[in-house]
Amino acid sequence: MKVAKFGGSSVSNAEQIKKVLNIVNSDDDRKIIVVSAPGKRHKEDVKTTDLLIRLYEKVIAGLDHISKKEEIMQRYADIIYELEMHDNLLFTIDKTLEHYIKTLKNKPSRLLDALLSCGENFNAQLIAEYNNSQGIPTRYISPGDAGITVTDLPQNAQILDHSYEDIYQLRAYKEKLIIPGFFGISRQNYVVTFPRGGSDITGAIVARGVRADLYENFTDVSGIFRANPTIVKHPEVIDEITYREMRELSYAGFGVFHDEALQPLHKDRIPVVIKNTNRPNDTGTFIRHDREINSNNIVSGISCDKDFTVLNIKKYLMNRQVGFTRKILGVLEDYNISFDHMPSGIDSISIIMRSKEIQNREEQVLNDIRKNCDVDELSVEHNLAILMIVGEGMHRIVGTANTITHALAESNINLKMMNQGASEISIMFGIDVTDAEKAVKATYEYCYNGECLKL
Amino acid sequence: MKVAKFGGSSVSNAEQIKKVLNIVNSDDDRKIIVVSAPGKRHKEDVKTTDLLIRLYEKVIAGLDHISKKEEIMQRYADIIYELEMHDNLLFTIDKTLEHYIKTLKNKPSRLLDALLSCGENFNAQLIAEYNNSQGIPTRYISPGDAGITVTDLPQNAQILDHSYEDIYQLRAYKEKLIIPGFFGISRQNYVVTFPRGGSDITGAIVARGVRADLYENFTDVSGIFRANPTIVKHPEVIDEITYREMRELSYAGFGVFHDEALQPLHKDRIPVVIKNTNRPNDTGTFIRHDREINSNNIVSGISCDKDFTVLNIKKYLMNRQVGFTRKILGVLEDYNISFDHMPSGIDSISIIMRSKEIQNREEQVLNDIRKNCDVDELSVEHNLAILMIVGEGMHRIVGTANTITHALAESNINLKMMNQGASEISIMFGIDVTDAEKAVKATYEYCYNGECLKL
Repeated sequence: MKVAKFGGSSVSNAEQIKKVLNIVNSDDDRKIIVVSAPGKRHKEDVKTTDLLIRLYEKVIAGLDHISKKEEIMQRYADIIYELEMHDNLLFTIDKTLEHYIKTLKNKPSRLLDALLSCGENFNAQLIAEYNNSQGIPTRYISPGDAGITVTDLPQNAQILDHSYEDIYQLRAYKEKLIIPGFFGISRQNYVVTFPRGGSDITGAIVARGVRADLYENFTDVSGIFRANPTIVKHPEVIDEITYREMRELSYAGFGVFHDEALQPLHKDRIPVVIKNTNRPNDTGTFIRHDREINSNNIVSGISCDKDFTVLNIKKYLMNRQVGFTRKILGVLEDYNISFDHMPSGIDSISIIMRSKEIQNREEQVLNDIRKNCDVDELSVEHNLAILMIVGEGMHRIVGTANTITHALAESNINLKMMNQGASEISIMFGIDVTDAEKAVKATYEYCYNGECLKL
Repeated sequence: MKVAKFGGSSVSNAEQIKKVLNIVNSDDDRKIIVVSAPGKRHKEDVKTTDLLIRLYEKVIAGLDHISKKEEIMQRYADIIYELEMHDNLLFTIDKTLEHYIKTLKNKPSRLLDALLSCGENFNAQLIAEYNNSQGIPTRYISPGDAGITVTDLPQNAQILDHSYEDIYQLRAYKEKLIIPGFFGISRQNYVVTFPRGGSDITGAIVARGVRADLYENFTDVSGIFRANPTIVKHPEVIDEITYREMRELSYAGFGVFHDEALQPLHKDRIPVVIKNTNRPNDTGTFIRHDREINSNNIVSGISCDKDFTVLNIKKYLMNRQVGFTRKILGVLEDYNISFDHMPSGIDSISIIMRSKEIQNREEQVLNDIRKNCDVDELSVEHNLAILMIVGEGMHRIVGTANTITHALAESNINLKMMNQGASEISIMFGIDVTDAEKAVKATYEYCYNGECLKL
């Protein structure tokens, strides 16, 4: 059994939905389908989810919301008329939106979740109804009926462990099932949305629950590129990557598949494939627990993420003072700041974090460290970019670090920091943000084409 | 004004002492001399300090100590007769040793400190008396009279800050002053020895106290080599090195000048020179606050130290859990374990420490981490060696990391870990202990001779 998830651009209009259903109906194993809300149909278009947020804002501001609601209904009406369906569903949409607005307008964060869920929810109903009308037995299943029970904090749903047993029951259905992504139902019976990459998470949860053989994640690219295609021209598509590699890459800026969605798949080792709705015959990128490593695929991918801040702390004889680092981390914890890397020397330590973690309270944090930790020197560096070279084979192959530092040196890029070892599958380089794109180009060409650019 | 310190081998017999006094008397600026206990005269000889420890052990065991005492007295008698001095001092030695044994035998750690101090103390008296007898006005000054007041924990003396003002008064003397190294006097009036590299520390404290223009540290080598001469054949002598570089190198295994002795010099920027008693005209190695950097001296030295242990900890979504790392460090703190490096990844952290820190309690530490920190995986790796490449110029020169990783790759050395950035002046590589010597040879030849060995 396969679980297939289709992203917003794959279900944005009638033509796309037909493509999706061709894919779905061409394989009997594709039993469970998770769909997003209608995405952009063209570059200037607005996503349905964003229209729903605008509706929410009108309601909360106490302004007339009718025109906003009609924009949303028009999106679905366009699809319904193009698919030559009965327009019953439009009444359901209108009724549902008005019901949420009426009953939840005094609970803004509940209202937001309820309205947000509509984008996916109406689309799932629409697609199920259409496929059924084409003679393929298909059933819409709401997240509540699917057993997707989640924690109750608005916009931050976490799946509850016992849900997986309930979800397993979906195997009993004979029809194809269409489930809306992006939200679950709490025990308190509220709609609660997932924090990020919502539909990917629903797909992953369902795939794990039904113990799928494969989780197919359909999007608008034919897989995951080895580097950002806006920086490197025509980068290779990765054929196979491990969960761990994917997590390092998506953390460091690869947006195709959200790392949070990997978590449910990890434990039961359910493989994922990232495929292109518009080119379904392209093999795509497989994400698995293990992969074969050979001399040509040691490095899986290269990413570079900006907006990091570093705290540099010096303290003479630091390494003899048991508890010194712990004290500093205690200050960060007081401010609920999470950090990403911490290269440490004999008398010094650097703490690297995303700039947003410390923004607007940098001075307070520095003052607290000065007050509590008896440091010799304390300085802050902004504008750091983090280049991540990710590959399962790296720690076994002598000379990977050499290859990469060589490529960077030839392009005259200064390495402020370097961190290898904690994670066996990546090397981190701290560089100036102005070198970020040059660094990706230089390492990409050297790793995959053996060309040493002098950028 | 210069403060000169002479190590054990420089004052081990009459001939060496004459050399020392030639050096001392040839320069009017050499006003204050710190001396060690007589060291080994030949390879099989025993240091006076070790003879004193044997004496201590006899006394504590309640055994007859006379023969041990006589061995010690014989060491000084040999020197006294060879220098054709009056043997008054031998009576003082006998009386002092018996006095300590009698009054402190029920306070073992106080007795140990008192006996340990005798090696330096008698030698300073002997040398002062001899130089005086040669017509050079010279005075023995005890650490108490010099104002070297220290904390009271046996074998772990720390200088008290107000001492420096008292020590400054030594400038008033017209004679040359001979001060024994290795110990001070506590406010409770006990003799307390310094923890490590004892005479170097006394020299540094006195040099800072009198605000010396130069602290000369005489030993039996003509300076500091760029790498261990038992590994690299005829390594270059470093002409100039900074305090920070010296500290990184001495921490990682360079034994010539103990890093603890650098601490007092740091603040007042008193330069040090390491010179050879047997070749006083060799320029030696200067240790200063700053140094000139050019393309030939970017890397100051290369060291490799063995016996490290790594804890590898994996935890999914670690970087989102504020406080996770702090909890782990809390466990280490409970066991009073200090660590040296901590490369961290997205979902993992490695904590590198000297093996002795965790020996004999590894299981307990691991259990406590498992119990308190909810880790996904926890493993321990022994037999790690740390290669340190140290140089002030490194962070400014693009490509240093490349040079070094290239040299290591050519010799087929696998890098388990790499850490650069926290300390701007060093790069750390974690390698297997079996690669340690090969790594030093390969990086030395490539850094200094431009030769790429394939070892």
